[in-house]
Amino acid sequence: MTQLEPQALLVIDMQRDFLSPASPLFVAGGPSIVLTVQRALQAARTANATVVHVRRSHRPDGIDIDSTRRNLFAAAGGFLVSGTPGADEPPELTPALGDLTVIKTRWSAFFATDLDLLLRRLAIRHLVLAGVQTPNCIRATAMDALSLDYVTSVLSDATASQTNEIQAANLADMAAMGITITSVSQFEESLGL
Amino acid sequence: MTQLEPQALLVIDMQRDFLSPASPLFVAGGPSIVLTVQRALQAARTANATVVHVRRSHRPDGIDIDSTRRNLFAAAGGFLVSGTPGADEPPELTPALGDLTVIKTRWSAFFATDLDLLLRRLAIRHLVLAGVQTPNCIRATAMDALSLDYVTSVLSDATASQTNEIQAANLADMAAMGITITSVSQFEESLGL
Repeated sequence: MTQLEPQALLVIDMQRDFLSPASPLFVAGGPSIVLTVQRALQAARTANATVVHVRRSHRPDGIDIDSTRRNLFAAAGGFLVSGTPGADEPPELTPALGDLTVIKTRWSAFFATDLDLLLRRLAIRHLVLAGVQTPNCIRATAMDALSLDYVTSVLSDATASQTNEIQAANLADMAAMGITITSVSQFEESLGL
Repeated sequence: MTQLEPQALLVIDMQRDFLSPASPLFVAGGPSIVLTVQRALQAARTANATVVHVRRSHRPDGIDIDSTRRNLFAAAGGFLVSGTPGADEPPELTPALGDLTVIKTRWSAFFATDLDLLLRRLAIRHLVLAGVQTPNCIRATAMDALSLDYVTSVLSDATASQTNEIQAANLADMAAMGITITSVSQFEESLGL
């Protein structure tokens, strides 16, 4: 039950406002990966691997929303607002004691956050990414992770996009950059489970 | 009652664990500036200037404490822990509706935070600094502010150090860098009050 090398599982943007069909931010492929993300979480915890829940969370007045989403935020009366149900995870993915949480306001989990400081303190050099959505926050995080010299893996069956075509194209692009595209089963094996 | 140019008041680290004599982080000069910081806050709000409360806040396990304070954090059983009274401000400095809050884990308010993003969105180019303590978090924030091209002022009577000598030496150093050392009275005037 010991992992072969220190890894951290990053669960990115698995929040109700991305997973609910009624939300303007709905990611069509999102609901179908909740259970595979949960399985990845359970594997990480069983192996005592670090878990980081990365969440997009915005101040109620939207002052910290991306420029390109300002109109959408206003029209929707806000989304992913800190402390509201839309910013929470679905019940299957509730953080456990010992899990870390990092709040972000942009695509990449590293942008204007203390994620790199935390991982550096933990001496973690290998990141495994899960969540939504692949072309935006998963890819931006993976590219920054590579730039920061992390060994970077993306779980193909625990990430999702609006369409299968977008998902496949992004996984191919990332593989070409040197990012390992893997599965939850392979992640479990890499943890010695 | 209109301010002459857009300014933001940053109130830095005015938290009980810096202001209580029983705390290992106690800043001896801190308690004596609570009322001048409060006066600066009231001036900023009256003039509709932006107010940002910058707070040092740590996860309960201390994973995000500075390397040089790890032993101190462990020996103290933690300090400035998110959600505990020690991380809160004194009652005179309670945030008002419309004030912003930014959490940091290091000296500078800009380091691994979204402060610069917020100020950029608000088109603010002039920062006025208050709080504790002058040689550490005030100075680190002022130097990063200068590096980011903000016009930077420090309120000499609303910042504090362990001793008067340290306070004077740091204000002199900052003045020599091009930082304006000013007072709460002058801040009120600059806001058109």
